[in-house]
Amino acid sequence: MIYITGIGPGNMEGLTAEALSALRKCDIISGYKVYADLVKKFLPEKNFSVYPMRSEIERCEDALELSKNGKCAALISSGDPGVYGMAGLMLEIAKDSNEEIKIIPGVTAANSAAAILGAPLMNDYAVISLSDLMTSWEIILKRLKAACDGDFVICIYNPASRGRPKNFKKACEFLLKYKSPETPCGYVRNIKRENPEAEIMTLEKIRDCEKIDMLTTVIIGNSKTYVLNGKLITPRGYEI
Amino acid sequence: MIYITGIGPGNMEGLTAEALSALRKCDIISGYKVYADLVKKFLPEKNFSVYPMRSEIERCEDALELSKNGKCAALISSGDPGVYGMAGLMLEIAKDSNEEIKIIPGVTAANSAAAILGAPLMNDYAVISLSDLMTSWEIILKRLKAACDGDFVICIYNPASRGRPKNFKKACEFLLKYKSPETPCGYVRNIKRENPEAEIMTLEKIRDCEKIDMLTTVIIGNSKTYVLNGKLITPRGYEI
Repeated sequence: MIYITGIGPGNMEGLTAEALSALRKCDIISGYKVYADLVKKFLPEKNFSVYPMRSEIERCEDALELSKNGKCAALISSGDPGVYGMAGLMLEIAKDSNEEIKIIPGVTAANSAAAILGAPLMNDYAVISLSDLMTSWEIILKRLKAACDGDFVICIYNPASRGRPKNFKKACEFLLKYKSPETPCGYVRNIKRENPEAEIMTLEKIRDCEKIDMLTTVIIGNSKTYVLNGKLITPRGYEI
Repeated sequence: MIYITGIGPGNMEGLTAEALSALRKCDIISGYKVYADLVKKFLPEKNFSVYPMRSEIERCEDALELSKNGKCAALISSGDPGVYGMAGLMLEIAKDSNEEIKIIPGVTAANSAAAILGAPLMNDYAVISLSDLMTSWEIILKRLKAACDGDFVICIYNPASRGRPKNFKKACEFLLKYKSPETPCGYVRNIKRENPEAEIMTLEKIRDCEKIDMLTTVIIGNSKTYVLNGKLITPRGYEI
């Protein structure tokens, strides 16, 4: 049995009851070091298999092996395992086995960041990762352009990292061809972990914001998004 | 104090610890009848203010009034309150007050439906509501077109209702101009409630599927989405 478990933003309060129950029931909690450390804080008694970045295939193979040996592994993803997480890869790696696999959804970063910034996702939105490790930069730009054409609110995952320090700035420069420099945006860094940071600013300003890194989620407004009492709001359209 | 609370798909297991704690602490749980009935099942001892559909403004005004009188209201939304839920409207209605408002995110239908269907949201996706009560049908079509241009996976909220029985079929006919009729899709109806239903089929077939109603979430694949052992998967791009 394998639980592919979304741990939400990373504190115990953000976990669903179903996810907590799976983490308690399993024999081994398996995941990337940063997320394993978050879970260890509230489940210190459990056994953990801790992995470095980019060992995703190994994590899935190990979980499958454990399951075949009658053990239950809980593979953790921050946020939701179905959004740039471990769910798809695990299903693909286990495709020839008969092991039981259960995907337990969690609150993904788009939603936890939105709740901190206000209500920017009240209308249609697009979720785009700026990581060009597995998606080409041309496709990422094509999607950013399409999101502008559709006047979607845009939620950016993986905006930048040490290996790709300029991706976010390059993406903002591209967006500025299609969107007003005054477009309201916001970022949340380290959601619900130690020292969370959040700020609302314009697209022109966020382009040069040095806080944007791999622990940050960015939300870029559509043509209707505005700032109200320090909160980012995209109106649904009620007449009030 | 007002908690704008996401209850997730509707059972107690899908609630975050933070949401459950807010529902337990508040004086009155306030919401649309269908969602209030879901919460009553696991918190029968609480006081509820139950409203019909389309009374969203009244619900927010009542919650604000309660808060001004020193009571704490928890305004509930299914899924996440920041996605077509109560968060934006409540912030707008409370804009001239000093009442404390806390938004508690939940697992939105895109993520709970994806977990049941497999892993269709592993790559970039767009979330689009087909309700044309507050967004014009032209804008909805513009967004569907843009989502096709960007080769996003598309997650459809509010696909149809008694008042708009043909919206989903019309949207599928529009999508078929840009996408293969063989595009893998899936729907989940009544996620985690009584009698949940889920099925995977092609875009051409789902167009005529009579199960699609207001309790249904639909996910339409992108050019890379495929079906593996009865699960819908959009590969992230790992080489396995």
